[in-house]
Amino acid sequence: MEGKLKTAVLGATGYSGYELTRLLLRHPRSQKPLLLKRESGSGGGNLSDAFPALCGNGGYPLEPFSLETLQRSGVDLLFLATPHELSRALVPEILRAGIRVIDLSGAWRLQRPEHRNVYGFDDADVKAAHEAMSKAVYGIPELRTGEITDAVLVANPGCYATSVILAVAPLLSAGLIDRERGIISDSKSGVSGAGKEATARTHFVSIADNFSAYAVFKHRHLGEMVEQLNLHSGELIFTPHLLPIPRGILSTIYVHLSRQCTTAEVERCYRDHYAGRRWVRVFSPPQLPEIQFSLHSNHCDIGFCLADDGQRLVIVSCIDNLLKGAAGQAVQNMNVMHGWNEAEGLQ
Amino acid sequence: MEGKLKTAVLGATGYSGYELTRLLLRHPRSQKPLLLKRESGSGGGNLSDAFPALCGNGGYPLEPFSLETLQRSGVDLLFLATPHELSRALVPEILRAGIRVIDLSGAWRLQRPEHRNVYGFDDADVKAAHEAMSKAVYGIPELRTGEITDAVLVANPGCYATSVILAVAPLLSAGLIDRERGIISDSKSGVSGAGKEATARTHFVSIADNFSAYAVFKHRHLGEMVEQLNLHSGELIFTPHLLPIPRGILSTIYVHLSRQCTTAEVERCYRDHYAGRRWVRVFSPPQLPEIQFSLHSNHCDIGFCLADDGQRLVIVSCIDNLLKGAAGQAVQNMNVMHGWNEAEGLQ
Amino acid sequence: MEGKLKTAVLGATGYSGYELTRLLLRHPRSQKPLLLKRESGSGGGNLSDAFPALCGNGGYPLEPFSLETLQRSGVDLLFLATPHELSRALVPEILRAGIRVIDLSGAWRLQRPEHRNVYGFDDADVKAAHEAMSKAVYGIPELRTGEITDAVLVANPGCYATSVILAVAPLLSAGLIDRERGIISDSKSGVSGAGKEATARTHFVSIADNFSAYAVFKHRHLGEMVEQLNLHSGELIFTPHLLPIPRGILSTIYVHLSRQCTTAEVERCYRDHYAGRRWVRVFSPPQLPEIQFSLHSNHCDIGFCLADDGQRLVIVSCIDNLLKGAAGQAVQNMNVMHGWNEAEGLQ
Amino acid sequence: MEGKLKTAVLGATGYSGYELTRLLLRHPRSQKPLLLKRESGSGGGNLSDAFPALCGNGGYPLEPFSLETLQRSGVDLLFLATPHELSRALVPEILRAGIRVIDLSGAWRLQRPEHRNVYGFDDADVKAAHEAMSKAVYGIPELRTGEITDAVLVANPGCYATSVILAVAPLLSAGLIDRERGIISDSKSGVSGAGKEATARTHFVSIADNFSAYAVFKHRHLGEMVEQLNLHSGELIFTPHLLPIPRGILSTIYVHLSRQCTTAEVERCYRDHYAGRRWVRVFSPPQLPEIQFSLHSNHCDIGFCLADDGQRLVIVSCIDNLLKGAAGQAVQNMNVMHGWNEAEGLQ
Repeated sequence: MEGKLKTAVLGATGYSGYELTRLLLRHPRSQKPLLLKRESGSGGGNLSDAFPALCGNGGYPLEPFSLETLQRSGVDLLFLATPHELSRALVPEILRAGIRVIDLSGAWRLQRPEHRNVYGFDDADVKAAHEAMSKAVYGIPELRTGEITDAVLVANPGCYATSVILAVAPLLSAGLIDRERGIISDSKSGVSGAGKEATARTHFVSIADNFSAYAVFKHRHLGEMVEQLNLHSGELIFTPHLLPIPRGILSTIYVHLSRQCTTAEVERCYRDHYAGRRWVRVFSPPQLPEIQFSLHSNHCDIGFCLADDGQRLVIVSCIDNLLKGAAGQAVQNMNVMHGWNEAEGLQ
Repeated sequence: MEGKLKTAVLGATGYSGYELTRLLLRHPRSQKPLLLKRESGSGGGNLSDAFPALCGNGGYPLEPFSLETLQRSGVDLLFLATPHELSRALVPEILRAGIRVIDLSGAWRLQRPEHRNVYGFDDADVKAAHEAMSKAVYGIPELRTGEITDAVLVANPGCYATSVILAVAPLLSAGLIDRERGIISDSKSGVSGAGKEATARTHFVSIADNFSAYAVFKHRHLGEMVEQLNLHSGELIFTPHLLPIPRGILSTIYVHLSRQCTTAEVERCYRDHYAGRRWVRVFSPPQLPEIQFSLHSNHCDIGFCLADDGQRLVIVSCIDNLLKGAAGQAVQNMNVMHGWNEAEGLQ
Repeated sequence: MEGKLKTAVLGATGYSGYELTRLLLRHPRSQKPLLLKRESGSGGGNLSDAFPALCGNGGYPLEPFSLETLQRSGVDLLFLATPHELSRALVPEILRAGIRVIDLSGAWRLQRPEHRNVYGFDDADVKAAHEAMSKAVYGIPELRTGEITDAVLVANPGCYATSVILAVAPLLSAGLIDRERGIISDSKSGVSGAGKEATARTHFVSIADNFSAYAVFKHRHLGEMVEQLNLHSGELIFTPHLLPIPRGILSTIYVHLSRQCTTAEVERCYRDHYAGRRWVRVFSPPQLPEIQFSLHSNHCDIGFCLADDGQRLVIVSCIDNLLKGAAGQAVQNMNVMHGWNEAEGLQ
Repeated sequence: MEGKLKTAVLGATGYSGYELTRLLLRHPRSQKPLLLKRESGSGGGNLSDAFPALCGNGGYPLEPFSLETLQRSGVDLLFLATPHELSRALVPEILRAGIRVIDLSGAWRLQRPEHRNVYGFDDADVKAAHEAMSKAVYGIPELRTGEITDAVLVANPGCYATSVILAVAPLLSAGLIDRERGIISDSKSGVSGAGKEATARTHFVSIADNFSAYAVFKHRHLGEMVEQLNLHSGELIFTPHLLPIPRGILSTIYVHLSRQCTTAEVERCYRDHYAGRRWVRVFSPPQLPEIQFSLHSNHCDIGFCLADDGQRLVIVSCIDNLLKGAAGQAVQNMNVMHGWNEAEGLQ
C-alpha cells in the first residue's frame, strides 16, 4: 500500500457510487477505498447487501461517515456520490480539514447565481457556501486540465452535460457555430440516469416498450451546459428523453455553422481539439457512434454528418452515463489531480 | 343500455383492473362500467390520471366505493381488483346485498384450511368469512363451467395457477401422470405479474438484462394448483421466475407418464379435453407455444414434447398474465355466469 | 356477406401486411380478406406459418397473386404491402381493371420528379407510371379527406412522415412557423419499422441496450414530408433513430414561431385543426405523449412545450408505426374512400 | 514482450471470439494476439469493421489463416472460435506442428461415439480425427485441473453444459443425488448464445417481449453433460429457452437427494468441492444468484433451495455465456495449461 492514495466514497450504494467503488477497487494507485454511509443512513452495513453481485467476494463493510473517521483513516481524497443538499452541507468543513473532494452531485457545478437555484440554493446558502464555491472547478478534464490539477474541490459534471459540452466545445471555440441560429441537443438516456429510487416512472412496466421526453426547457443540466459553453440561455435548447435501456446516453445535436465548411474541416476541428486525449474518440464520417460502442468504457464518442449545404450539421455524441458521465470521469479527474496518466485504472 | 348488465370495478388503477376496465368498456353486453376507488384511496379522481393512454378519450371518473353507491347504481356484478385483505373485508356484505362478485384477488381461492394462511387468514378470519367462502367457486371456466354458471362469488384464479392447471388437468384426469414421480412447473412471468407498486425489485435497472428465480417452494399460487389438481403438496414443485418483459407467462412443466404413450395419444388427450373450448389452443408437435403468441389475447396455448421413451413429457403452456391470467378470465367468467358465449367481448 | 366490401391483401407476411390482415378480419364492413402472395413467392402457403400466433384459429391460406384471381374473386379494393418496385409494376394494370388500390409502399407518394429517384424511378419508369402517378392521392385522411374519398389509388404515407406531417401541418397552415429558421424532426422508431428481414442491424444483440441514428439527411421519408408540407428541402432536417423496442415512433420536433404566442394559442391551433377527427389526440401542456400511450391504437398523439420566450417550440408526436403509421391508416383510408366513419374497425 | 505467450485467435469476428480477443489484449502474460480469419473469409480486414466499438483504438488487422502464418509468427497457443466442421478439419495438422489448441467449438467435446454424430461426425470423420480426439481434454478447470495442465488440445465446454455440470457435479460425486429419479435442467440463455448470424429467430422483433423453449430433448449440449457427469442419457432432461436479453444463462435444476439432508449439508458439499476455486461462487440460502450478478465476469454462481422434506432440491446456476460459458473459460484454461493463477487476466 506504500505510496498509494487513500480514497473514500460516501454514497457507494447508489449506481454511480457503486461504479466508482468498483473502479477504485482495481485502481493501481488507490488503496482499497474506505466506504462510508450517512450516519442516519438505514439499510445494510455491507455494500454486498445492496449489490449482491459482490456476494462472496469477501465483503465491503460500510462505515458511518464522520470527519473524524476521514481523519483517523488518513483519507487524502473523498468522493461524494450523494444528494446535492448533503454535499453542500458537508463540503465546507471537509475542505477546511485539508481533504480534497470530488463531488458527483450538482452542488458546486454552477457559478452563475441565476442558475444555482435549480439546486435549491437560496441567498443564505450561497453565502454559507461562498468559500467552497469559489474553489470549485468544473471537472471536465479535456477542457480544464490545468485547473483540475490544482483543485481542492472538483465538481464532477452531469452526465447529459458531459455528452453535450464535449461535442459542442471544439466547434464553438473555433468560432464555427452560428450562435444566433441556436444549438439544439436532443438527448436520450438510459434509466440508471434517473437514479436508484423506485418510482412509478422507473418501474419496469413504465419504461419497457416505451420512450418519452421530459423536463423540456427546464432540466437541471441546462445551466451547466450554458455556463461551460459560455452561451446565453436562449441559445441552447436541451430536451432529455428516457430510453428503455439501463445505461448509456446519446445526444443528437443540431447546429448551423457560421460559414460553409467541408466534412474534412469539421473532422479536423475535432481531431485537433482532442489530440492526445485518451477518452474522446472522434469518428470519421459516415460512421456514427452508437450507445453500445461506449458502454462499460470511459469513452465519449463523437461523430457527425454535414448537410450538402456545408452549414447544417448534425453531431452525435455517446457516453456511458455511469462512467464518462459520472464515476469514470471522477476517476479521470482523480488521475489529473495527481498528475497520473488520465487512463490509469480506467482501461 | 336496455338489457345490458350493470358492472362495476373496484381497483381499476392496478394493471389487472385497468385491463378489465378496457375489456368491459367494449363488451357488447355490459353497460359502461362504474369505476370505483377505495374511500381512503388517495390519488386522482380519473382513471386517465393513472393511465394517460386514456387521455382525450373523454374521461373515466372514479367514484368512492360504498355499498350504497353499488345499490343506487343498480350494480348487478362487481369485479374486485383489490388486495386480498380488502376483498375479504368487503365481500360478505356485498353478497348479502344480493350483488354477484368476481374477485381477482386470492382471498377466496383456497378451501383447504392449511393453505389459507398464505393470505394471512387466522382462525377468526376463517370463521368470519365462512359463509362467503362456502359459496366461492374457483373460476377456471374450462374445468368448472357448471359451478360458475350458478355462482354468486367467483374466485378468479391466479395467473401462474391458470397456466399450470390447464396444462396438467387433462393428463391427470385421464390418469396418465405418474404422480409419485412428481410434477414440476418451472414458470416464468413478465413483470406486470408483480404488480404496479414501485419497489427495488420492479425498478427497470433491476429487471432489464436480468432473470431470476424467487419464492422457491413457497409461492402463494402453489396451494391453488395443489387444490384444483387434487394433489398432495409434495407432488408438485413450482418455481416462479421473473422475465425482463412487461407481460406474459410461460410454464415449462415436467411429468412422467404412468404408461408409455405416443405423441398422438397425448395430443388426443388434450384435444378431447378441450373440445369446443374457445380459449385453449392445443399445438401439434413439434410446434411449441411462445409467449408472443398469446399476448394481448385470452388464449391459453398448450404444446408438448414427448421423449423417445414415451414417458418423459415436457409441456409448455403460455398465457397473457393480465388477460387469461386475470382480467380476460374474469370477463370469461362473467360470460359463463350469464350463459353468454364465453368469447363475448374478448375477441 | 351481403353488401360487404371484398378486400384483398398482397404481402400479408410482412409486419404491416399482417397487422392489416388482422384489422380487416374484424372489420364490420369487409368480407374476410383474400390473402395473396407473389406468384414467385417462396415459403408457406398459410399465414399461420409466418405468424404462429394464428395457430389453431382455422387457417389463413395464401393464394398466388394474379389479376385473374382478383377479378374472379370480385375484389373491390386491393391493399399492397409490397416492396415499392413490385407496387410500381403491378398498379397500372390493376387500376385499368377498375380495382381500387391502397398501396402501403412508397411507390406513389412523391409527385416531385426530383424526389422520386429515392425509390429508384428512372425516366422510363416515370413515363410508364405517369398515368397511375397522376391519379395517386397521398393518404393522410386528416389533411386530404376530399381527395381520398374519390381516389382510385391511395399512396399510404410513410410511418415517420405521418408522425411529422400531422404535428407540423396545423402550425404551418396557420402561418405560425418561421420557416427560415428551419424545422427539425428528431425521430425515433421501434425496430418493426425496419422490416422483417433478418440483417446484422436487426439482430437482437445489435439492438438491445443500444440506440443509434441513421440515414441522417437522406432518409426516404424526407421527400414526403417536404412535399406534403410545401417546404423547400433545406427547410427541414429529419434524423431517424432506432429504438430498442418492437414498435412505436416518437418525433421530437423543433420549430421557431413566426410571432410570440401563448401556450393557449398553440393548443387552440391544434384543437381547431383537428376538431372532429377521431385519430388525432391533442395533449394539453404540460402532459406530453409517450410511445406507450398510442401503442396498439390508431392514434396520433400530439403534445408540445413552448419556451418562456413564446417562440421556441418543442412538439412531441407519437404513433404506432404499424397502425397509424401503416395498416391502421390504410384502413382509415378505406373508411374514408367508402364514406364510412373513419373509426370503423379500428377501435 | 519478453517471456510472454504468443497467442492467436481464429474467428475473432464472432461473439465469443471477440470477447476472447478483448481478454487476451489485456492479459498480462499474453502478447497482443494474432487475429486470423479464414482464407476464404469475406468481409473486412479489420476487427473494428465488425465491432465498431473498437473504432479509434488503433486497429486490429485480421490476417488470413494458414499453418505457415502460425509458424512464422511463433504462435504457442491457438484459440479456435470457429464452426466445429472447420475445427475438425484444421486441428490435426496444427497439433502435428506442435502448437497447442483451445477449441471453443463442439468438435472435440464428445468421446462417446453415439454422441458424436450431433456434430455430424460420420465413421470416416471419426477415423480421421481419432488421434486428435484421443488427445482432447474437456476443459472445465474446476473438475479437470490436472488433465488440462498437460493437454495439447482443450475442448472448451459448451455454455449451457458449463452451467449444468458445475451445479450438479459436487452432489453427484458425493453420492447425494438419486439418479433414478432423474435430473432436470430447465435452462435459459440470452440471445448471443444463438450466435451472430441474422435469422428470423434472432430478429429483434422475434425476441423482444417474448420467451420460448426450443430443442427439447435434443440440444447438442446434452451429450456433453451426460458424458461429463457419467450419466445415462435417460437420467437427464435438458430444456433450453431463449431469453430476451443479450447475454447470460440461468439454469434451474431439479434433483431428488438420495437421503434426507439439511441445507447446511448441501452448502457444505458445494463449499468443500469448490474450496480454493476462484471462479465458482457458492451462495448461502436463501440468497439465489441472478443473471445480472455474473454478467461481464467469469463467475459461475451457484445457489439452491431445499424443500422441507430434505430431499427435493432446486439448484440455480448462473454464468455469462460469453465468459465462463466461452471466452473466459478459454482464458482460464490457458492459465491452467501454463501453471498460472487461474484468475490471471480475468479480473
